[in-house]
Amino acid sequence: MGKVNHVDTDADKVLNVSEKDVQKHFDSLAKMGNLGPSLDDGFLRAAWSDEESQAFEYIKNEAESAGLTARYDGIGNLFIRTPARKNDKKVVQVGSHIDTVPEGGNYDGAAGIVAGLEAIKAVHSSGIMTCKSIELVIWRGEESATFNAAYKGSKGAFGKSFKGDKGDILKNEFRGKTLEQAITEQGFDPSYFREQKPTINQEYIDNIFAHIELHIEQARKLETDKISIGIITSIRGYDRYRITVAGEFDHSGATPMGTEYRKDANLAIAYMQVEIDKLGRKYAKLGNDLVQTIGEINSNHELNKQHGIYNNAITKVSGIGYFSLDIRSNNQNFKEAYVNEAKKLIKRLAKSKKVDIEILPMSSDNPTENLDEKIREIIACSCDRLSYSYQPMSSGAGHDAAIVAQQMRSDGAYVPVGMLFIPCRAGISHNKMEFAKTEDVVKGANVLVNTIYELAK
Amino acid sequence: MGKVNHVDTDADKVLNVSEKDVQKHFDSLAKMGNLGPSLDDGFLRAAWSDEESQAFEYIKNEAESAGLTARYDGIGNLFIRTPARKNDKKVVQVGSHIDTVPEGGNYDGAAGIVAGLEAIKAVHSSGIMTCKSIELVIWRGEESATFNAAYKGSKGAFGKSFKGDKGDILKNEFRGKTLEQAITEQGFDPSYFREQKPTINQEYIDNIFAHIELHIEQARKLETDKISIGIITSIRGYDRYRITVAGEFDHSGATPMGTEYRKDANLAIAYMQVEIDKLGRKYAKLGNDLVQTIGEINSNHELNKQHGIYNNAITKVSGIGYFSLDIRSNNQNFKEAYVNEAKKLIKRLAKSKKVDIEILPMSSDNPTENLDEKIREIIACSCDRLSYSYQPMSSGAGHDAAIVAQQMRSDGAYVPVGMLFIPCRAGISHNKMEFAKTEDVVKGANVLVNTIYELAK
Repeated sequence: MGKVNHVDTDADKVLNVSEKDVQKHFDSLAKMGNLGPSLDDGFLRAAWSDEESQAFEYIKNEAESAGLTARYDGIGNLFIRTPARKNDKKVVQVGSHIDTVPEGGNYDGAAGIVAGLEAIKAVHSSGIMTCKSIELVIWRGEESATFNAAYKGSKGAFGKSFKGDKGDILKNEFRGKTLEQAITEQGFDPSYFREQKPTINQEYIDNIFAHIELHIEQARKLETDKISIGIITSIRGYDRYRITVAGEFDHSGATPMGTEYRKDANLAIAYMQVEIDKLGRKYAKLGNDLVQTIGEINSNHELNKQHGIYNNAITKVSGIGYFSLDIRSNNQNFKEAYVNEAKKLIKRLAKSKKVDIEILPMSSDNPTENLDEKIREIIACSCDRLSYSYQPMSSGAGHDAAIVAQQMRSDGAYVPVGMLFIPCRAGISHNKMEFAKTEDVVKGANVLVNTIYELAK
Repeated sequence: MGKVNHVDTDADKVLNVSEKDVQKHFDSLAKMGNLGPSLDDGFLRAAWSDEESQAFEYIKNEAESAGLTARYDGIGNLFIRTPARKNDKKVVQVGSHIDTVPEGGNYDGAAGIVAGLEAIKAVHSSGIMTCKSIELVIWRGEESATFNAAYKGSKGAFGKSFKGDKGDILKNEFRGKTLEQAITEQGFDPSYFREQKPTINQEYIDNIFAHIELHIEQARKLETDKISIGIITSIRGYDRYRITVAGEFDHSGATPMGTEYRKDANLAIAYMQVEIDKLGRKYAKLGNDLVQTIGEINSNHELNKQHGIYNNAITKVSGIGYFSLDIRSNNQNFKEAYVNEAKKLIKRLAKSKKVDIEILPMSSDNPTENLDEKIREIIACSCDRLSYSYQPMSSGAGHDAAIVAQQMRSDGAYVPVGMLFIPCRAGISHNKMEFAKTEDVVKGANVLVNTIYELAK
């Protein structure tokens, strides 16, 4: 934290976005995928759903009305641009997503899109012709809660693999529909995923001068510390697994307790969960960056349709079960070592509880250990000029920006990426109580517009 | 264990059932509710389903072909009789059920019916006119895995309450159908349940001279000890609960670990399960009769349809969950004290894990602490005369016989009840691998026929 020296712009011009328009966008988006009459009913704008597409079209129309150009790529990501001075193909990008988890809120992702749209509009309407183009990218389907994979739009755009065989991700289902069906129904082309064919080619990547994402914090540090802007230094990577447990069904009244008699899937899962919890907290206490979560136990809608899980009953020793495990760290070496230790622990407990297990990798992403320092500096400068408080922080959640940060230019350097966080109420996200104040989004958008202006001019 | 002295019958006649007919019945029943082409595919003869009714009709036809009378009561229990000598209204009853849990086997319940049918046929075909009538009762829907309540037929016949408001049980669902619909569809009258109206009146109860149930052991003691017949001394009672847990959904990557930040329903359930397991094993080690089981975690088909359980996701701290708890003992005082301690433990852990809970009673039944000693003696005599090995044992599972044992005659005495167990393969039941050898069922049926003959003559 602290003041960073900066070179003033020619006019030392400070740009500001329109609070009225920011509010208008949230009010409009609040009608798209809302699960009831009020914000508190939560949202579902699933990846490649009618609701997500409706939100995309809304942003496209707003951008075009403001004189910006807009185009979809082959898988439905939306690119909105201001024109650049001739002969400079470089682009300063702002990006985020607009989909939600089931019963999510109107701010995770959407805040970055609303702020990005108003930032790019503010530069455009200022009449200044920047050297570089400025682009807002709205990625499709960032949330892994739909179709079991995260960053679907951004990874798809860069032709990245989704762990497992080529095209496999297209078979993933959400509420009875495969990803392939969903993409096709929205008028886009699933073959990009099947063939790992990028929509953003190497020349395009070489021209990304900088990429910035604004996001709600999804934790409560900014709110607690009364700070307006978090400048992100690293983004956690993750490893996700599904662990299936096979015990043996037995009569709950006639079978004595203990592993001499019972192979109890539920009990084995409980011991695994408690021991993993203790292991994780031990390492976190030692100062390692780590969060781990068992978010699903026997509660995946798609799995439960086929899985024999309903053969469990009150009066049976449970013969079957499964759980998810999400392990995150901003340190790749530590993450790898920890994942191995957690797997060993699970295997050891399976043996002692007499159950059979399978540890199935679901998805994985490396941390972004260091976000671009120059961009961090420019964000800090922008905060200073606007007199907003700020502090450096690590991002616990993953973001599309981390996917962009993994893209290598032809010269061997990675695309420079920056991120800024704004506070959200009580740190809550992925929840229908998720909320961010319009004034906080406006502050973020003001930092964003001055940062991209500085980068693009 | 050991030889019990007995008075020989007049003719010291030893009756035997037909092994061929026993085999024929299992082969026939194997086609009713089988979930695939072989026994190993498991069975579902749900309470008041077409499959259960088909099995009832089969037994009825077989009985009538053998010259026995058969009648259904108002809720679909089937009563098969041999005629008695005039002026003696007393009846010696044999009973069991023929329904199964989902993916259950062809022997839990059915073994008692097949043995009972052949026993009553053997008396009838011997031509001996007994003083008392002999009756085989096939109770409907004993398994609690369907419609969330056990002993539905036998409790219904005696007009017993199912805990909770009158008639509530009729609203319980199994696979999208209420119990009321299921009973009506099979042509019987749900108003008996709604009004707690018995189909077996007090005069009838006064005339039950003895009631005997044969059942597979559902544990592996007889098999391990190479003993043919278990003579039951007590039947465990049970208390069943569903515990719902409300935490708070949060982002799995951005929310630090620990209860300062997380209200994790899944983690709270895991700690509850492990601590309850430790508590139960401590008391069992001290010599108390106890088994406890958490058979369902987030895996009840009916609940999951309405419940918000699918809002849990891999990338969310879990905000919601539930589990079942089945506690059984053959000692009522101990059971009550233990249940209270387990509830206290759950509440204490809920507080320390920062989650809200509800402990909902599902069903409860007292143990039968002592089965009738005279009947036990006659069963032992029958074994001796047949030269079958036997041993006294406690029943871990509950049985319809326990409901009969709770019925009081006008003279203040309870109906005298006896039970005998036969071995089943590896002690497995409530499982598609459930199996009992025909020769073992025949041995049980031979003990049964000589016991009821002795009681009825």
